[in-house]
Amino acid sequence: NNYINFPLVASPPGTFGAVSNMPSNSGSILGISSQIPNRTTEFDGLVLKWGKGLPSFSTPDGNYSFRVRGRILADYGASFSSRFPQQNISRTILRAARLGVQGRARNLSWVLEGDFSSNTLQLMSAFATWTDKTAGLLSEYTIGNKFSERGFDGSTGSSDTVFLNRDIVANLLVPMMGWYGLGGAYKIYGKNWHIATQISGDQVNSTNNTNNVRDDLTYLLRAHYIPFKDKVSLIHLGFWGFYEDSKPTQNFTQNVNLLNYTDNAFNFQVRPTAPLSHSLSGGVELFGIWKSFWALFEFGLRKLSLRRTYSSYPNYALWAGKSGSEEALSVQGGVFLTGETPNYFAHSGVWAAPRVLHPVTQGGLGAWEVSLRYDRASVSRSLGSSNASTVTLGVNWYFLNYARFMFNFTHANVLNTHGLYIGYNSGNTLGGRMSITF
Amino acid sequence: NNYINFPLVASPPGTFGAVSNMPSNSGSILGISSQIPNRTTEFDGLVLKWGKGLPSFSTPDGNYSFRVRGRILADYGASFSSRFPQQNISRTILRAARLGVQGRARNLSWVLEGDFSSNTLQLMSAFATWTDKTAGLLSEYTIGNKFSERGFDGSTGSSDTVFLNRDIVANLLVPMMGWYGLGGAYKIYGKNWHIATQISGDQVNSTNNTNNVRDDLTYLLRAHYIPFKDKVSLIHLGFWGFYEDSKPTQNFTQNVNLLNYTDNAFNFQVRPTAPLSHSLSGGVELFGIWKSFWALFEFGLRKLSLRRTYSSYPNYALWAGKSGSEEALSVQGGVFLTGETPNYFAHSGVWAAPRVLHPVTQGGLGAWEVSLRYDRASVSRSLGSSNASTVTLGVNWYFLNYARFMFNFTHANVLNTHGLYIGYNSGNTLGGRMSITF
Amino acid sequence: NNYINFPLVASPPGTFGAVSNMPSNSGSILGISSQIPNRTTEFDGLVLKWGKGLPSFSTPDGNYSFRVRGRILADYGASFSSRFPQQNISRTILRAARLGVQGRARNLSWVLEGDFSSNTLQLMSAFATWTDKTAGLLSEYTIGNKFSERGFDGSTGSSDTVFLNRDIVANLLVPMMGWYGLGGAYKIYGKNWHIATQISGDQVNSTNNTNNVRDDLTYLLRAHYIPFKDKVSLIHLGFWGFYEDSKPTQNFTQNVNLLNYTDNAFNFQVRPTAPLSHSLSGGVELFGIWKSFWALFEFGLRKLSLRRTYSSYPNYALWAGKSGSEEALSVQGGVFLTGETPNYFAHSGVWAAPRVLHPVTQGGLGAWEVSLRYDRASVSRSLGSSNASTVTLGVNWYFLNYARFMFNFTHANVLNTHGLYIGYNSGNTLGGRMSITF
Repeated sequence: NNYINFPLVASPPGTFGAVSNMPSNSGSILGISSQIPNRTTEFDGLVLKWGKGLPSFSTPDGNYSFRVRGRILADYGASFSSRFPQQNISRTILRAARLGVQGRARNLSWVLEGDFSSNTLQLMSAFATWTDKTAGLLSEYTIGNKFSERGFDGSTGSSDTVFLNRDIVANLLVPMMGWYGLGGAYKIYGKNWHIATQISGDQVNSTNNTNNVRDDLTYLLRAHYIPFKDKVSLIHLGFWGFYEDSKPTQNFTQNVNLLNYTDNAFNFQVRPTAPLSHSLSGGVELFGIWKSFWALFEFGLRKLSLRRTYSSYPNYALWAGKSGSEEALSVQGGVFLTGETPNYFAHSGVWAAPRVLHPVTQGGLGAWEVSLRYDRASVSRSLGSSNASTVTLGVNWYFLNYARFMFNFTHANVLNTHGLYIGYNSGNTLGGRMSITF
Repeated sequence: NNYINFPLVASPPGTFGAVSNMPSNSGSILGISSQIPNRTTEFDGLVLKWGKGLPSFSTPDGNYSFRVRGRILADYGASFSSRFPQQNISRTILRAARLGVQGRARNLSWVLEGDFSSNTLQLMSAFATWTDKTAGLLSEYTIGNKFSERGFDGSTGSSDTVFLNRDIVANLLVPMMGWYGLGGAYKIYGKNWHIATQISGDQVNSTNNTNNVRDDLTYLLRAHYIPFKDKVSLIHLGFWGFYEDSKPTQNFTQNVNLLNYTDNAFNFQVRPTAPLSHSLSGGVELFGIWKSFWALFEFGLRKLSLRRTYSSYPNYALWAGKSGSEEALSVQGGVFLTGETPNYFAHSGVWAAPRVLHPVTQGGLGAWEVSLRYDRASVSRSLGSSNASTVTLGVNWYFLNYARFMFNFTHANVLNTHGLYIGYNSGNTLGGRMSITF
Repeated sequence: NNYINFPLVASPPGTFGAVSNMPSNSGSILGISSQIPNRTTEFDGLVLKWGKGLPSFSTPDGNYSFRVRGRILADYGASFSSRFPQQNISRTILRAARLGVQGRARNLSWVLEGDFSSNTLQLMSAFATWTDKTAGLLSEYTIGNKFSERGFDGSTGSSDTVFLNRDIVANLLVPMMGWYGLGGAYKIYGKNWHIATQISGDQVNSTNNTNNVRDDLTYLLRAHYIPFKDKVSLIHLGFWGFYEDSKPTQNFTQNVNLLNYTDNAFNFQVRPTAPLSHSLSGGVELFGIWKSFWALFEFGLRKLSLRRTYSSYPNYALWAGKSGSEEALSVQGGVFLTGETPNYFAHSGVWAAPRVLHPVTQGGLGAWEVSLRYDRASVSRSLGSSNASTVTLGVNWYFLNYARFMFNFTHANVLNTHGLYIGYNSGNTLGGRMSITF
């Protein structure tokens, strides 16, 4: 039987035995690959690993590898009880539909991936990485369009998050360039820590070309450290920050979804629509595992400075040269009812796919996780003193390592002082997702 | 010689020996794969099937498989003799340029595919399917964006249709959501029948998001049954239907191409541009094979109800609350001059790729098919009493199972009472296509 | 050691030993594949070639093959010293981010590729080719959307060009349809020559459909001949031409980037925006190699005729029926400081990837190339007597055959008489690129 050796017990947290896969947004990692006994086929010149869904092709020495990769995240959401009827809608969406390839030839690896959801193409990863081992430490030099590290939930790929929507620290404290940046990155990894740095222009777009403007320039840093780890528990400390220098025409305005992606009308709306000069942001992460339980605390701040000159905003004089701030906090926790170790990826300190002890394809129940999150965000008086909070209850059923159903109930409160739907409001969403990563 | 065992005689209709492949829009089917002796390479851990063009990678137990897939359909068309000079144009188009992947891990399979033609991306399939055998019957549970079953020609993928354009039953009786829907589907297959059901929101799009509206909700059903089958003949009976509940802002308007995709100006134009409330549609299919001959009869009806309230349409009062109907009929037949059995896929009752007896790559003539089709459509007095009919003569040269040239001559008559080009008109198109599926 | 047999000496120019790969925009070539000892894995039924980055899968008889392919070209550019401040900008862009597949089954091959840069999809290759050997000569019959041959630099794919931007002969003398055309192509190859012909409608687009107009019709021809070749040197002669018959609504207007793709404001602007009737263009190529040195001379002319009738251009009467001409010249040369033979692909007379003698992954220095180019273009008095010239100094560091860094300094002079930024101007750009092809 092929499955006789399949481990039926949970592995210590933060080990490769405790997570099934690399996070789905990571490229190849030199010398590190999924350590779980996969369904592997090996000949003298080729190794196929089927455990992730699609096979990964590699040479036996591990020097060359190639994989087609992607994900499908299909959502349904029903919103109700907002006082604005336009916000009480039910809708299907594809949260993500991605197709890409990743390859590696010795030290050089590359990833190219596009998102096909919404019937348009969005380029996601498009980078090449040179990996070196310096004094036993893994270092990565990357050039291209790459997902940024920014907080615990914010550094996690869309296919690996615990809830349908990332926490509000990740969603509010986003630089103008977005989640990906085109530029250079350097990362270094220790045994129980890593440091990630990135200097980026804007995500690829045609806007800069059409308007003939320079890029926003963004400098990012994130680090994590695991001060304690034993057979059943683990503590993770992390911090991150970014500084951005915005291009002249870059207006600042934010609409942060509070009731998932299926209800884009129920927003936390941060205004004015005025040109941003620069902003500085930072945050801390505290994460812990005990047996099948996990808890995460995230907090972050952002200080924004508006431009003194140039604006087509109607009430320009009101905003010129002003500064403001945003803050966001998230407290969350969960437990795997079926005994799995939480799917923490110790290498870079983010979520990965869980290792399901009893997959449904082998007659098991899959893995069942229950989780709860409280998020809160507010902005300074100069930006309108708006605030928002949400409570989300989640149930995840991982029927395989790379396929899951997710169910979320979210209650949100918001006070908007700008934009549409001004005033205090509250609402609820029942949301579901079918997610498959390959 | 690798080809010594290649069957040089036609197989009974409705068997896997009579069609070369699954239809190109189908995912993996558990326990069923192409039964034709392909050019297969097998080692202890990997099976490669080259017969479809690109190799399909699978494990010897058939539990895991992976395939990159796609199609290129390049068209040219020359239209002439319309009384509106703007409709007499010659043009190249790409009817389809698709790239995707499909995989399967035991019971779980997935497909992700995008269309690159027209220099924009359109998401096609993006779904995951769980397949079970219940009491010997194959059942499929699907979530995601999936091609709907709707009539014989309408359930056939663009790479497998006999003519350049599907018949008018398929093209006229389309729900507002389109050909694909994002939602859930359930299908069950017997030895000589199948039933397909689907509940769908809209195809993925950004319009609902931008306008903040709910989905159209569409319920679809199709079934087929093969009451008779012997060594040389086969009879297929089918019926289908859908009910759709349209979103408030969904305007109803239809332009059905009569002279292929290269002349989008020669249309059957159904109006008014008024908001649809709901519609109900249904149809029947009668298909038969005798030796190399085939014939298909399709008929369908659609009953439409316009909304009583809300419209920005200028002559709103004229249409509010009205109902109307559309009907469409198609009679077609063909013969393989080179002795092939018509490429009917008995599993789901649609067209598939033919099994060419003497492929050109092996020095043969390929397969030659001649076919003829008569289509007729009309709408009720409340929708303007418009009508259209076409006669199409087709010649297909399949040089390989998965590559073909198609030539069509179409004569069309139309009476439009709304839209552009009002009045009676007729026109002709000479069209050609190079089609390759991989 | 796997690399003991790796050739450490340069091969004669124009041989397969001197270039590492087919040019990246070419499909499979029957009977010809990379002759360099790749890192190849072979079993009884499968051959994997890892040398290009991603593996190419093929059967041992070479009759079937399949490859996922793509490229990532990430650029940064800083422009300065233009007298128009809007032209002095710094910006990142993705010059290309492509994903595609190519396959071959005996004589039939196909390529499908899309470009994902700029966050939109652009279809690139989408064609099928039938290859035959007639009297020992390789002939290719192609249908679909295919990159056109037009000059030496203009026939080279974006991943193989020596400089960041192709020479001005390639960039100015472009037919209205663009770089790709949807239609038919025929090519025939001799031992030291080839002839390429193409008849094309427009590149795939939705514009013709929306506007309901016919295609531009373009006829292209290119041929090259190698009159002399020995162990250290080679001479290439080439000529090319095209004739285009433009559709009625096709306005003529050109903006040719002079300072790379990161500064699209510094243009050579050819006007008027008036409808083109037809144009005829032709050019010559003279290329030579001596040891690690190469030199290329290109010259081309284009004669344009504007329509006599129909125009929405304001000063229509000024232009109706007029004709004008464009001419472009490029002189360039370079040397591989590390001893490589210039990466000339003798089969079709274009650039390919170089064969790096000492790849960085094997502890070598990679290949270093220094190059210099002078470009000059002007248009006739009837088109405004505008002119432009550029000088570009380039340094390329190929760390592997398929991965490189490129650095360019460009100084440009331009005299624009129409469009934005009228008058004489000059500017400079420092540009860099990370390029990886797989």
